[in-house]
Amino acid sequence: MEVVLSKVLKRIEPTLHEIHEAHKLFTKIKDIIVNDYPSLDVKLMGSVAKDTFISGDKDLDIFVLFDPKVSRVELEKTGLIIGKMIFDTLGGKFEVSYAEHPYTRGLIGKYDVEIVPAYAIKSTKQLLSSVDRTPFHTKYVHKNLKSTGDVRLLKKFLKGIGCYGSDLKTEGYSGYLCELLVIKYGSFLDTLKYMQTLKFQEIIDLDNHYTKKKYLDVRKRFEGHPLIFIDPTDKLRNVSAVLSKEKLAISINAAALFMNKPTMSFFFPVKKVIDEKRAIVNVKMRGVHVVVLRFSRPDEIEDILYPQLRRFMNLVAGKLSKEGYGILRASVFGDMNCGIVFELNELKLSPMKMKKGPSIFNPLDHRMRFIEKSKNVWIEDDRLVSDEKRKYVDVNDFLCSFLKKPANKLTYEGVPDRLAKEIYSGFDILVDSKVSKIKSGEFWLWIVRKAF
Amino acid sequence: MEVVLSKVLKRIEPTLHEIHEAHKLFTKIKDIIVNDYPSLDVKLMGSVAKDTFISGDKDLDIFVLFDPKVSRVELEKTGLIIGKMIFDTLGGKFEVSYAEHPYTRGLIGKYDVEIVPAYAIKSTKQLLSSVDRTPFHTKYVHKNLKSTGDVRLLKKFLKGIGCYGSDLKTEGYSGYLCELLVIKYGSFLDTLKYMQTLKFQEIIDLDNHYTKKKYLDVRKRFEGHPLIFIDPTDKLRNVSAVLSKEKLAISINAAALFMNKPTMSFFFPVKKVIDEKRAIVNVKMRGVHVVVLRFSRPDEIEDILYPQLRRFMNLVAGKLSKEGYGILRASVFGDMNCGIVFELNELKLSPMKMKKGPSIFNPLDHRMRFIEKSKNVWIEDDRLVSDEKRKYVDVNDFLCSFLKKPANKLTYEGVPDRLAKEIYSGFDILVDSKVSKIKSGEFWLWIVRKAF
Repeated sequence: MEVVLSKVLKRIEPTLHEIHEAHKLFTKIKDIIVNDYPSLDVKLMGSVAKDTFISGDKDLDIFVLFDPKVSRVELEKTGLIIGKMIFDTLGGKFEVSYAEHPYTRGLIGKYDVEIVPAYAIKSTKQLLSSVDRTPFHTKYVHKNLKSTGDVRLLKKFLKGIGCYGSDLKTEGYSGYLCELLVIKYGSFLDTLKYMQTLKFQEIIDLDNHYTKKKYLDVRKRFEGHPLIFIDPTDKLRNVSAVLSKEKLAISINAAALFMNKPTMSFFFPVKKVIDEKRAIVNVKMRGVHVVVLRFSRPDEIEDILYPQLRRFMNLVAGKLSKEGYGILRASVFGDMNCGIVFELNELKLSPMKMKKGPSIFNPLDHRMRFIEKSKNVWIEDDRLVSDEKRKYVDVNDFLCSFLKKPANKLTYEGVPDRLAKEIYSGFDILVDSKVSKIKSGEFWLWIVRKAF
Repeated sequence: MEVVLSKVLKRIEPTLHEIHEAHKLFTKIKDIIVNDYPSLDVKLMGSVAKDTFISGDKDLDIFVLFDPKVSRVELEKTGLIIGKMIFDTLGGKFEVSYAEHPYTRGLIGKYDVEIVPAYAIKSTKQLLSSVDRTPFHTKYVHKNLKSTGDVRLLKKFLKGIGCYGSDLKTEGYSGYLCELLVIKYGSFLDTLKYMQTLKFQEIIDLDNHYTKKKYLDVRKRFEGHPLIFIDPTDKLRNVSAVLSKEKLAISINAAALFMNKPTMSFFFPVKKVIDEKRAIVNVKMRGVHVVVLRFSRPDEIEDILYPQLRRFMNLVAGKLSKEGYGILRASVFGDMNCGIVFELNELKLSPMKMKKGPSIFNPLDHRMRFIEKSKNVWIEDDRLVSDEKRKYVDVNDFLCSFLKKPANKLTYEGVPDRLAKEIYSGFDILVDSKVSKIKSGEFWLWIVRKAF
């Protein structure tokens, strides 16, 4: 174990040169800003500030702090002007990104630099925007973190198993969450030891903001969040709000596997090379059917695309299963090709189906309405049942009947708007061996059933 | 409506001659018994005593009442001697039946006569055997029933829709229950009007033995009974204990249909003639599959056979659905051929199946055990999943593997004992068009989806 960890550490700890270089670039940027805006406070944030970044990472998060008396409009305007000035002066490309408010981000040399305007508040109770929390996070980590090496190990481990990142594609662990876990459990190994036995909706309350009596209320407040890590700087916030059940499950499982048999491959996974032909033969051998709905990838950032894909997948899954298809698994992909995919028990259903009517214990007029509408009614258990001819016997026909509609009609029926537009302009339904056409790493990993 | 009911009444009211004949036979039997056993009380029970029998019915229930001081052994011995004497003297064939204790029943002329020994108790609180209740039932009905014609209509109606009889094949309404319903609601029509709106686990407490506050306890006491009719002569007994949910549902539905459009056919249903070839074509057209497990009918009375068939059906249904088969409907038949039948979505399953393992939130050692046993483990939602090769892909092979065993092994696995013996000595599995070989009215009614 120790050998593995020290080998990993050697590869991921940044060199002194790297650290100096990053701080030098920050100082340069800060000087430029303060020169023009002497009243503003410029602070380094992110993993460079907390010294928890992994060697090779070139991210620089710079916060420009305004007096809370400055108006929001003023803050946004000045923030963008400052950003533009930095990238112009230092010769970088930039774009305007949006979190709660717009900010500039771009490349300066090898560095991915963000210039974020925020309010200099005294306490998170005065929050004017969610980014205002970041300085408190940095301060807290600075004060409490003892071992940055353990944070690096944890981040790299989670990255290796595909669970690092609080973006809405990954739905994994944020950097701040990693830092807090190590603060709480002391080391990488102790964090993993604990992680492997996590329970659903476990509450981790580092600074004891709540008594145990309040835990039921806390779980209600964060309903549906699979893990609840109370932000020590703001007890109303769950640091792991983005973490999905699937990514939590994968990390719990990987932690157990690693504790059982530690290898380097968790940190440095070999890129999977998938034999696509063999994968399809395998699908056939299983006797299941793969159905893919593919359409053009909308020109959207992942934080918007993936949540929409998942909502769309759930919508279609609901329709399929209500129709009578047995869904074994379902997923989405958006890395190259874009679409949703299902493993089904069958591609065709019976031409007739039993239409379930009201229970015999329902009000009389409900029942009579069902009886009057049906030709042949009988009783199963306590339900009225009748025969119904299926409109679509084939999954292809069924999906086409649902999706061949104008975009606004699709949106009305629950298809997320960016997808609705692409689907209206055309989609493929690929079944079984036809899926060989699909170009998407995510898709093929799912087909061969690999989590990491 | 009135026309229909009066027409029916005309056909089902016994003639004066019928009534006299029945009572004459009773008097004759009573005289013979009292002559030899002057200390015993001989009483007429059943629908003749209560004048609620339907013209043509030839049942005579005679109770021989013993002093409670007489021992049970003595009562049973003397009861059988008396019975034998009656059938010998009056020239009838008889057999010994068993309720809670043995009694004689047999034919005298056209009459089906039962001679039942029981204790002459003062109150149902002193019950020594469940048959001791009968005299109290008779007395209660005598005292409270105003219209015997309405009871006859109700009995005949329920007979017509297959819901009359508290035997364990029918699982329907007993004669006493019909009498109490008419006592409660006043007439046949008012009973049906009420019946069509019955709720699940409705409590009918004719003599207000319980306050409404106690209804929750009453429902707990009679858990699983779809209808609760408190016996006015014994508040601890549910008169409709035998009534199944299915038969209750059929009667509620028929009541509603009759109130909506009253016809004679509810009382005098035309015997269904089923075109078996067309029925099979119909099954095929639906796209479902019929699977029958047929074996020799054990030499058992229906009260034992049918409960065993139903238990067996549930056992096999559980196995099939756990294996992955989609069961649409299931039933039993024992009228000529004997067996159980399923409507399935498919006859074959995929060669591989997903084996669901523990949730990721289960204890670590559970999960590790699952992981160590499996070759390829991945995660779906919060469950560990692995691949498993199916042992039996075909429903025929699967059922054979379960059932081709010695009788004692079958019993050990939950097959009711009388059926286990027959199955061990041989069974057929008939699929789809092969079911044409089956001789059973019950089976074919089920195939064409007719309740009555």
